Order: sequence, then structure tokens, then C-alpha cells
Amino acid sequence: MNRVFNFAPGPAVMPLEALETAAREMTSYKNTGVSVMEMSHRSKMYLEIFEETAALIHDLMNIPGEYQVLLLQGGATGQFAAVPMNLMTGSGKADYVDSGNFAHNAMVEAAKYGKVRSAASSREINYTRVPEIDPAQLDPEADYVHITTNNTIYGTRFAEIPKTGSVPLVADMSSNILSETYDVKDFGVIYAGAQKNIGPAGVVLVIVRKDLLGREMPITPNILNWKKMADADSMYNTPATYSIYMAGLCLKWLRNLGGVPAIEKINAEKAKLLYDCIDDSKLFRGVAEKPWRSRMNVTFRTGDEAVDDAFVKEAAKNGLINLKGHRLAGGMRASLYNAMPAEGVEALVAFMKRFEAGRV
Amino acid sequence: MNRVFNFAPGPAVMPLEALETAAREMTSYKNTGVSVMEMSHRSKMYLEIFEETAALIHDLMNIPGEYQVLLLQGGATGQFAAVPMNLMTGSGKADYVDSGNFAHNAMVEAAKYGKVRSAASSREINYTRVPEIDPAQLDPEADYVHITTNNTIYGTRFAEIPKTGSVPLVADMSSNILSETYDVKDFGVIYAGAQKNIGPAGVVLVIVRKDLLGREMPITPNILNWKKMADADSMYNTPATYSIYMAGLCLKWLRNLGGVPAIEKINAEKAKLLYDCIDDSKLFRGVAEKPWRSRMNVTFRTGDEAVDDAFVKEAAKNGLINLKGHRLAGGMRASLYNAMPAEGVEALVAFMKRFEAGRV
Repeated sequence: MNRVFNFAPGPAVMPLEALETAAREMTSYKNTGVSVMEMSHRSKMYLEIFEETAALIHDLMNIPGEYQVLLLQGGATGQFAAVPMNLMTGSGKADYVDSGNFAHNAMVEAAKYGKVRSAASSREINYTRVPEIDPAQLDPEADYVHITTNNTIYGTRFAEIPKTGSVPLVADMSSNILSETYDVKDFGVIYAGAQKNIGPAGVVLVIVRKDLLGREMPITPNILNWKKMADADSMYNTPATYSIYMAGLCLKWLRNLGGVPAIEKINAEKAKLLYDCIDDSKLFRGVAEKPWRSRMNVTFRTGDEAVDDAFVKEAAKNGLINLKGHRLAGGMRASLYNAMPAEGVEALVAFMKRFEAGRV
Repeated sequence: MNRVFNFAPGPAVMPLEALETAAREMTSYKNTGVSVMEMSHRSKMYLEIFEETAALIHDLMNIPGEYQVLLLQGGATGQFAAVPMNLMTGSGKADYVDSGNFAHNAMVEAAKYGKVRSAASSREINYTRVPEIDPAQLDPEADYVHITTNNTIYGTRFAEIPKTGSVPLVADMSSNILSETYDVKDFGVIYAGAQKNIGPAGVVLVIVRKDLLGREMPITPNILNWKKMADADSMYNTPATYSIYMAGLCLKWLRNLGGVPAIEKINAEKAKLLYDCIDDSKLFRGVAEKPWRSRMNVTFRTGDEAVDDAFVKEAAKNGLINLKGHRLAGGMRASLYNAMPAEGVEALVAFMKRFEAGRV
């Protein structure tokens, strides 16, 4: 079996070990005679799988008892609507930090349901950094403040989590959840599409402080209603059963590796290796401003689109795939999620040096 | 590898051939060096998979050009909200046929968004049949009429599709789609959760007549907005990529078998075999009234709960699993979806005869 190094921004590389287990268990899970895909979501055998996945999330993120873990459908984009529908019923106002394309989309979606304000924005500088947030500028009456901890397209990351006092902080962590240590208690709600650091696409993780449940608007569809889903342990309707099982396999791999503190160290090393290469290069330069550089999505370019294209094409021929940057940012992007091995980054750096030296 | 006969109502049995292909391709799809789970949804290699699945649906259901096929997230339960949010903007009224638990849930969900009426109901007789629909009773001003073609819990099926004239007919076909021939032109919208006859849980198929697109309420979340999804070929956000690939494998199996006409014949034979056994039995009796018996979900009972329980337990020991009926209907339920082989039904019938004769 050939395998390549896959730098896709999500859906993205997954631990080989998890894929191999899935292949082995595909037609008969642990001698049950059925695939996990064929199990009723209400069956004992499936509930064990579901609970194991939920327990892994609790353990890996050190989630306190006053938080509810939900595994839902519709991705982070679904939560862009769910957040206001479940929370924006006090003052009907919310503050958004506009730090990237998805942060912006979240804000636009929320505006359907209430009074939304851009409390800080780096949109005018094409999101090459995370905007400064002046706590005094935040609306103390807002029902919540929304941030995006890592901006996938531009390769930036909140270096510091803003303090929002008694206003609940809601974070879209889709592209850096489980990659570094966060204190869940700093947040009212955390959500993340699975397809970067959790598992396959089709599941979205929502972690919500229990006192924030029950504030939903009457128009909230049941599938986006956190309270309804919490009361039914995420099974008000049939969940994405197989994707949740796959997430469990990926999270087991992470736990066996030493959990979030261990992967955080590895991720910092992987990112440093690549950023050092970029900073030492005369050909490549980084897109994001240094203090806000993401450890998950490394954006860089040569300044010449034709050279960028040639780089992406040659890299693919060398088993380094999906390095093309998002059209909004241009250039290249190497996504270094948890499952990207250090060897992949080493191979990329070696290739970049060969490319710069004109030897490819 | 042991395999059992799995009569689960959904998620349900899948074609073994599809599972075996998935296992084989898990770590490297067709020599690409990546799993389908790891592919960017915007990559050429994934788009080919997506388009193949969509083309199979078009072909198998003979879908005319004026209809749009969408593959979304959130299940049929998500569509319970999406249907009114996308259609109930004319008169703001809709007629629902209350023929079962999910039909009822669809109606309750829709009432959040407009004026919903139960145009016909069999709720008072515990849904043992599909209610009569008097076309003269339907509201000609309604934005749509909603039916549920097959009622999973009670084991009933619309023997005839009602004529609704110029009012669009919307059908939840979750539990009998692709099991028998329907003329798509009879419907304005068809939707179906995948986890019975399409593929794994986590995908919902929506087939919508194009002239019905663009009527959504401003509060419609993007993930439930048919127009937005149609404009983006179901990829406004990351779809459930792997589940769509699996659906494609299952649908290829169906096509190779001869498509819907071929499986319809097999399904009729499977259902007849089991219903004949029930009708010939002195111990078992059917739950649904005969003219409305489902070919997908066969409900039956002994009249004695302890005997029902013993039957379900003994059957499981004999490799016939998930025969317990839904708590709302009681007794037993054997779901005979497309992927349930005739051998499974033969084994069940043989076991029922042994059980009745006291030989188990």
C-alpha cells in the first residue's frame, strides 16, 4: 500500500492506525457479525461505542462536569446558525471577532437571528493577523462573544484567548481543537467540525456549559437545539453513527500517544520546522504575521503565482499533496493537523530546499 | 468472518459487497495513497466519487432534469424543519397526513414555522393503517401537502400516492426509497435519511423540483437552505464525504442487481414470505392492517409480551438480531430493507415455525 503525505485543510489526514482498525472491523465489529454502520444507534453495542468516544473527548480535553458534550450533524456551518438560535435570546445582541473567512461567515449567519456586531476585525488587511480586542469595547449586554481560535484559510491563531467577563465566550475551534491545551472553563461554548483533528466529516462536536442550555428561540430546528439534543444524549434523531465510531478510533490514537500535552509539543516542533524553513528561505515567505502564526495551517508563497503553481504540482509528484492555498489567500498552505507525522513535515521541508535550489 | 441476519430498522443491514470494497479501499483509495475520509471535498478525486453517487441516484430513480438532487446533513429530522422553511412562504399553510410517529413529528416541527393542519390521521387507532385522504378535504391554498410513504415503526405503507393537483406533494421516503418504483414527477419534493436503503447514517437525500427552489424564509439556516445548497452542488459547506462514498458503493450494488424494478420484485417476494408465515400462524399476528402493510418493516406480535420477549431473545441466539418492535408499537418488527437477502427472511420464517412448534 502506497501512502502519500496529505496536507489538505480538511477533510484531512487521519491516523493510519485508525484507518487500519476500521478496515479490519468493517464487515464484523468485534465478532458481532455486523458492521458499525449497520448497528441501530439505540443498540447496546453501538451505545458502548458512542459513550467511549464521548468519554475520550471528556478525558482528552479535561472537560468539567458542568459542561455537556454533544455530537451533532451539519458541521460548524450548522453551528453558525445554532449559536445565535440557542443563545441570542437575552438582549438579542452578540459580538463577533472577524478574524477570517469562517469567522465572517459565522457573523453573517448570526445576523439572521439578532443584532450582530463586528467587535474587532482584520478583514481590511486580508486577515493576515488576528485583530486586537479591547475588552472595554465589548458590549457587556451581549448574549455572547464569538471567536474563531484558528483561521484555516489565512493560517492565523489567537495567541491569547480574550477575557469576556460574565459574557459567555463562544469559540469555533474547528481547525485547532485537540492540538493544544485549552481550559474549557474559559469558554461558554466550544464547537468544532470533526474533519480536521477529530475524525471524518459529518460530525460536529459541541461543548456547552449546562447553564447556557434552554435559552433557544422557538424557531430553532430540533437538530440544532442544544437543549433537546442534551436531553437525548445527542440522539434526538439518528446521529452520524459511523463517523462517531471513526472519531473514537482517532481519539484513541491520540490518547495512546500521550493526549493533548504530548501532541501539542509535537505540533509546536512540526510548525517550527516549517516556519524556520520559510524564514530561512530567499524564495518563500510566510503570509500570516508572526505573532499570530497558526500551528495547524502554515501559509506561504513565493510572490510569483506561476512559481507557486509549479511548486504545488512538483510537490504532488513527490508524494506531498494538497499544498495549494485557498483561493482567498493564494500561494501555498500546508495543514499540519495532529495526524500529520513529523516525517511529512521533514519531507516537505527537504522538498522546499530542493525546489529553491532548482533541483526539482 | 461470521455475519448475522440483522433486521434493524435503521441504521440497518448493508450489502456485504459494499462493506468489503470499503474495507479494501480504506487506507488507499484506488492507489491514490489516501483514504476517501482524508480527501478534501473540493479535490478532483473526491468530486468524481460525489458525482458518481449523484448520477446513480438520478439513474436508479429515473429523475427528470427539472429536479435537483441534494446530499445534505441532519437526517430526515433536519428536513422536518427544512420543508416548511423552504416552502411555507406562500399562504403560510401546509397540510400533513398524520400516518405515523415520524409523520407526526414532521408536522409538529413544521408548526414552528407556519399554519399546519392534520389533513388526515390514523393516530387514534395507533397508526395501524394509513388514513383515507379525501382530495376534496385538502386545502387548495396550502403551500404543500406532506406524506410519509412508509411508516417504519408501525409497518404501514401508502398503497396509493394521493393526487394533490397543483399543490406540491412532499414525501418523506426515508424507509422505502429505492425499494419500489415511484414516479418522481408525482412529487414536488422527496427526502430520505440514508440509513435504511441508501447508505450509512449521516446523509439525507433531497430531491426537489427546481421551480420550488428560492422560496425559503430569511431565517433558514444555510445548511437547511435548499437553494443555497443547490447553487453549491450540495457543497456550501463540507458534506459527509465518506458516507456519500459508502452510499455510492451501496447504490452500485443495487444497479448491478438490476436497479429498482429488480429489487422491487425481490422485496415483494421477501415480504410475502414473511406475511404468509404470519397469516398461517396460530401464534403470531400482524400489527398493520393488510391493505397498508409495509414491504420494508413487518410488524407482528403474539399478544403476550413475555412470549414476544422470549422470541426476540431466542432469535438473537440463532443469528437473527434486532427483531424487537419499537416501544410505541410493541411486539416484533422485522425490517427487510433492500440489503436484507432472501436467505435472511427464509431463516427467520424457519425459526418462527420452530418457535411456534415449541422446538427452540
